[in-house]
Amino acid sequence: MKATVHVMLKPGVLDPQGEAVRHALGALGFAGVASVRQGKVIELDLSGEDRAAAEDAVRKMCEKLLANTVIETYHIEIA
Amino acid sequence: MKATVHVMLKPGVLDPQGEAVRHALGALGFAGVASVRQGKVIELDLSGEDRAAAEDAVRKMCEKLLANTVIETYHIEIA
Repeated sequence: MKATVHVMLKPGVLDPQGEAVRHALGALGFAGVASVRQGKVIELDLSGEDRAAAEDAVRKMCEKLLANTVIETYHIEIA
Repeated sequence: MKATVHVMLKPGVLDPQGEAVRHALGALGFAGVASVRQGKVIELDLSGEDRAAAEDAVRKMCEKLLANTVIETYHIEIA
Protein backbone atom coordinates (compact mmCIF):
# COMPACT_ATOMS: atom_id res chain seq x y z
CA MET A 1 0.00 0.00 0.00
CA LYS A 2 1.24 3.45 -0.90
CA ALA A 3 0.78 6.52 1.27
CA THR A 4 1.58 10.09 0.28
CA VAL A 5 2.05 12.76 2.92
CA HIS A 6 2.10 16.47 2.12
CA VAL A 7 3.70 18.68 4.73
CA MET A 8 3.29 22.45 4.35
CA LEU A 9 4.14 25.36 6.63
CA LYS A 10 1.04 26.82 8.28
CA PRO A 11 -0.25 30.08 6.83
CA GLY A 12 1.50 32.98 8.51
CA VAL A 13 4.69 31.04 9.21
CA LEU A 14 7.61 32.67 7.40
CA ASP A 15 8.82 30.57 4.46
CA PRO A 16 12.31 31.80 3.47
CA GLN A 17 12.76 28.93 0.99
CA GLY A 18 9.55 29.84 -0.84
CA GLU A 19 10.52 33.50 -0.75
CA ALA A 20 13.91 32.66 -2.29
CA VAL A 21 12.17 30.74 -5.10
CA ARG A 22 9.81 33.68 -5.73
CA HIS A 23 12.77 36.04 -5.91
CA ALA A 24 14.69 33.73 -8.26
CA LEU A 25 11.65 33.35 -10.55
CA GLY A 26 11.41 37.15 -10.75
CA ALA A 27 15.12 37.39 -11.58
CA LEU A 28 14.61 34.84 -14.37
CA GLY A 29 11.92 37.05 -15.91
CA PHE A 30 8.77 35.23 -14.73
CA ALA A 31 6.32 38.00 -13.91
CA GLY A 32 3.05 37.60 -12.05
CA VAL A 33 4.18 35.22 -9.31
CA ALA A 34 2.53 36.72 -6.24
CA SER A 35 3.73 34.21 -3.66
CA VAL A 36 5.48 30.86 -3.35
CA ARG A 37 5.26 28.34 -0.52
CA GLN A 38 7.47 25.28 -0.43
CA GLY A 39 6.70 22.08 1.40
CA LYS A 40 7.63 18.43 1.49
CA VAL A 41 6.02 15.38 -0.02
CA ILE A 42 6.84 11.98 1.44
CA GLU A 43 5.88 8.75 -0.32
CA LEU A 44 5.78 5.64 1.84
CA ASP A 45 5.52 2.04 0.72
CA LEU A 46 3.70 0.16 3.44
CA SER A 47 3.13 -3.53 3.92
CA GLY A 48 -0.32 -4.72 4.94
CA GLU A 49 -3.70 -4.37 3.24
CA ASP A 50 -5.79 -2.62 5.88
CA ARG A 51 -6.44 0.89 4.62
CA ALA A 52 -7.73 2.30 7.92
CA ALA A 53 -4.81 0.82 9.87
CA ALA A 54 -2.37 2.25 7.34
CA GLU A 55 -3.88 5.73 7.62
CA ASP A 56 -3.77 5.49 11.38
CA ALA A 57 -0.10 4.43 11.33
CA VAL A 58 0.85 7.22 8.91
CA ARG A 59 -0.96 9.77 11.09
CA LYS A 60 1.16 8.63 14.05
CA MET A 61 4.32 8.88 11.90
CA CYS A 62 3.37 12.46 11.00
CA GLU A 63 2.77 13.44 14.60
CA LYS A 64 6.01 11.84 15.79
CA LEU A 65 8.47 12.47 12.97
CA LEU A 66 7.33 13.66 9.56
CA ALA A 67 5.76 16.99 10.51
CA ASN A 68 6.45 19.63 13.14
CA THR A 69 2.83 20.26 14.08
CA VAL A 70 3.66 23.54 15.79
CA ILE A 71 4.44 25.21 12.46
CA GLU A 72 3.39 22.65 9.84
CA THR A 73 0.19 21.02 8.63
CA TYR A 74 0.06 17.61 6.99
CA HIS A 75 -2.31 15.86 4.65
CA ILE A 76 -2.39 12.09 4.10
CA GLU A 77 -3.47 10.24 0.97
CA ILE A 78 -3.66 6.44 0.92
CA ALA A 79 -3.59 4.84 -2.54
CA MET B 1 -4.70 31.22 -9.97
CA LYS B 2 -2.97 28.61 -7.87
CA ALA B 3 -0.45 26.09 -9.22
CA THR B 4 0.99 23.16 -7.32
CA VAL B 5 4.20 21.51 -8.49
CA HIS B 6 5.36 18.14 -7.19
CA VAL B 7 9.05 17.39 -7.68
CA MET B 8 10.24 13.84 -7.00
CA LEU B 9 13.53 12.09 -7.62
CA LYS B 10 13.35 9.72 -10.58
CA PRO B 11 13.08 6.01 -9.76
CA GLY B 12 16.55 4.58 -9.35
CA VAL B 13 18.10 7.83 -8.15
CA LEU B 14 19.46 7.39 -4.64
CA ASP B 15 17.35 9.25 -2.04
CA PRO B 16 19.40 9.58 1.17
CA GLN B 17 16.79 11.84 2.78
CA GLY B 18 14.04 9.27 2.22
CA GLU B 19 16.35 6.52 3.42
CA ALA B 20 17.06 8.50 6.61
CA VAL B 21 13.31 8.89 7.21
CA ARG B 22 12.77 5.13 6.68
CA HIS B 23 15.53 4.37 9.15
CA ALA B 24 14.15 6.83 11.73
CA LEU B 25 10.64 5.38 11.39
CA GLY B 26 12.08 1.92 12.06
CA ALA B 27 13.92 3.22 15.12
CA LEU B 28 10.65 4.72 16.40
CA GLY B 29 9.00 1.31 16.19
CA PHE B 30 7.02 1.69 12.98
CA ALA B 31 7.29 -1.68 11.26
CA GLY B 32 6.29 -2.47 7.71
CA VAL B 33 7.68 0.60 5.99
CA ALA B 34 9.34 -0.88 2.91
CA SER B 35 10.60 2.31 1.32
CA VAL B 36 10.37 6.08 1.63
CA ARG B 37 10.95 8.70 -1.06
CA GLN B 38 10.99 12.37 -0.25
CA GLY B 39 10.26 15.17 -2.67
CA LYS B 40 9.24 18.80 -2.80
CA VAL B 41 5.90 20.47 -3.26
CA ILE B 42 5.84 24.08 -4.42
CA GLU B 43 2.65 26.15 -4.33
CA LEU B 44 2.59 29.22 -6.57
CA ASP B 45 0.08 32.05 -6.54
CA LEU B 46 -0.12 33.36 -10.10
CA SER B 47 -1.83 36.43 -11.46
CA GLY B 48 -3.86 36.09 -14.68
CA GLU B 49 -6.88 33.96 -15.54
CA ASP B 50 -5.64 31.97 -18.53
CA ARG B 51 -5.27 28.37 -17.40
CA ALA B 52 -3.30 27.16 -20.43
CA ALA B 53 -0.90 30.11 -20.25
CA ALA B 54 -0.39 29.51 -16.52
CA GLU B 55 0.40 25.84 -17.08
CA ASP B 56 2.81 26.77 -19.85
CA ALA B 57 4.56 29.33 -17.62
CA VAL B 58 4.84 26.89 -14.71
CA ARG B 59 6.28 24.24 -17.04
CA LYS B 60 8.99 26.71 -18.07
CA MET B 61 9.65 27.53 -14.38
CA CYS B 62 10.09 23.82 -13.68
CA GLU B 63 12.51 23.33 -16.58
CA LYS B 64 14.54 26.40 -15.64
CA LEU B 65 14.51 26.45 -11.85
CA LEU B 66 12.14 24.28 -9.85
CA ALA B 67 13.28 20.83 -10.94
CA ASN B 68 16.58 19.31 -11.97
CA THR B 69 15.26 17.30 -14.91
CA VAL B 70 18.36 15.10 -15.05
CA ILE B 71 17.43 13.42 -11.79
CA GLU B 72 13.93 14.70 -10.97
CA THR B 73 10.45 14.47 -12.43
CA TYR B 74 7.77 17.08 -11.92
CA HIS B 75 4.01 17.14 -12.04
CA ILE B 76 1.93 20.30 -12.36
CA GLU B 77 -1.60 20.88 -11.08
CA ILE B 78 -3.45 24.09 -11.86
CA ALA B 79 -6.37 24.92 -9.56
